[in-house]
Amino acid sequence: MEDIFVGIDLGGTNIQGASGTPHGNIIQRGKIPTRAALGAETVIDDIAQLIFDLAQGREIKAVGMGVPGLLDLEKGVCVFSGNLNWRDIPVVSLLSAKVGAPVFMDNDVRVAALGELAQGKARDCQDFIYLTVGTGIGSGIFIAGELLRGSHGVAGEVGHMVLDPQGPACTCGSRGCLEALASATAIAREGRAAAASSPESLLNQLATNPQDIDAALVFQAAGQGDATATQVVDTAMNWLGVGIASLVNIFNPRLVVIGGGVALTREKLLAPVRNQVGKYGMQVQKETVEIVTSALADSAGVEGGLELCRRQSQIYSNNK
Amino acid sequence: MEDIFVGIDLGGTNIQGASGTPHGNIIQRGKIPTRAALGAETVIDDIAQLIFDLAQGREIKAVGMGVPGLLDLEKGVCVFSGNLNWRDIPVVSLLSAKVGAPVFMDNDVRVAALGELAQGKARDCQDFIYLTVGTGIGSGIFIAGELLRGSHGVAGEVGHMVLDPQGPACTCGSRGCLEALASATAIAREGRAAAASSPESLLNQLATNPQDIDAALVFQAAGQGDATATQVVDTAMNWLGVGIASLVNIFNPRLVVIGGGVALTREKLLAPVRNQVGKYGMQVQKETVEIVTSALADSAGVEGGLELCRRQSQIYSNNK
Repeated sequence: MEDIFVGIDLGGTNIQGASGTPHGNIIQRGKIPTRAALGAETVIDDIAQLIFDLAQGREIKAVGMGVPGLLDLEKGVCVFSGNLNWRDIPVVSLLSAKVGAPVFMDNDVRVAALGELAQGKARDCQDFIYLTVGTGIGSGIFIAGELLRGSHGVAGEVGHMVLDPQGPACTCGSRGCLEALASATAIAREGRAAAASSPESLLNQLATNPQDIDAALVFQAAGQGDATATQVVDTAMNWLGVGIASLVNIFNPRLVVIGGGVALTREKLLAPVRNQVGKYGMQVQKETVEIVTSALADSAGVEGGLELCRRQSQIYSNNK
Repeated sequence: MEDIFVGIDLGGTNIQGASGTPHGNIIQRGKIPTRAALGAETVIDDIAQLIFDLAQGREIKAVGMGVPGLLDLEKGVCVFSGNLNWRDIPVVSLLSAKVGAPVFMDNDVRVAALGELAQGKARDCQDFIYLTVGTGIGSGIFIAGELLRGSHGVAGEVGHMVLDPQGPACTCGSRGCLEALASATAIAREGRAAAASSPESLLNQLATNPQDIDAALVFQAAGQGDATATQVVDTAMNWLGVGIASLVNIFNPRLVVIGGGVALTREKLLAPVRNQVGKYGMQVQKETVEIVTSALADSAGVEGGLELCRRQSQIYSNNK
């Protein structure tokens, strides 16, 4: 039997995985809940078990994994992850000892960007920005085929571009970041405020408890024509468009791929974003960029994990 | 006699140049006015004459030149330059025919960034952002030692990051760009408005004609303690700081070097910029970046032109 790669997308809620041949055929996919509350060892045990299940007795050649948090790639350590409640977890050594194969790790959004490059709309594209718009806003930026990493590995924090210096507080401690204006979290926050001040709105009526309004409910009410919810969505998507216009002016990419939960609303997002790029983008930049939503839904991370295996195994065998 | 390189910095007002040995010793420097009103041919004749003067009879091995405008580097054409009033000028072929040597051209700000890398504060730095803050705001961004160019060669337009979507109109046709808020042009515009509404201010009294207030006068009045002018300077420099904070979050550079006319005010600029980066920058990014003003004054472009010769000649001889 052929050796296999396993791609893992470690999220705060679920762990997704897939086994595949080195040439790209998927063998099996799987998904388990992330039992973060039980501690890092349990989570890593669960990942190892998922990997063995996906391998179906085949030899595991390598594991490629996206991890949500601040990573020290040289040491293979997750320095900090708010989603997982991790601090200084030596993920790579723990997991590779358990599965008996090399483990390649990178930031979850970067791994998803790699998935877009390997299997998504960015295939064969050398200059693109992959954005995830969900609870937060993150990016993986490819320049001339290379991932932008920065001097200390933390480049790509486009969610923390400042768009409104007096704007709402952001989780990062700053104010008016793109993430504080256009993420699902921002949409939920503004939805709750709008419902409170417009009790007659459909948004407020749809909510069993106004404090439980989330982004999905705001999009649902907007989809049903509620003016209050529509205003909230439009405001957020206009901010997203302003942020993307700035990125397009700075990076002159050929393509912007938007993934993450909010991107599933497709035209609700694309129309205002394209409109803002038309308004705030520079001539050459806006004429030469294509802006699309991801077609990989939530599998970009797993595809990226497999691609990470392919790329790193190549480097590994070239250096032997 | 040794062959020489000539570096040229073509500006809207002056043309600066220097001849140097391939190993970096400057032989002679020179400066002539840019006679843009007489047309492109005259300007190129003037550049050729300056090059011959700087060569002092030595063999010219190559010319490296920064040109302010939109360039087609493959064809060696200046597609458009507002400063020079040029459209589709085949600069490289015209000039190399006149001087009998290869001419290497790039955008003026990128060439100045190269000068910072070769001879300025960015020496030996692989990840840095060089910003010019003058009439406009431009940048040259080095990532892992490579210049960011973008898919169509127009990356680095950080002056057209949108910081205030409802803000003042920008020359690019958009609104609230960094350049419209923090350039010398913006400082002059706000200075005129502030002087008009505060006729008792020192700024207004220093101006022979309030309509002639420029950035230099605003800085002068601020330096003499005028509250009106100080407010204008602080507002602009705070915006500059917000823009730089976003760039630091996105690129995670080791160094930001600020050049251009406004950077000559040093602490007036650095203090608010560093303060804003402290406020709006992310933890790792702000702890690992150094923000300085250029020490090359207005010679970064010429130094960069010489460095362009060195780099391109190497590529040229390697491909032979």
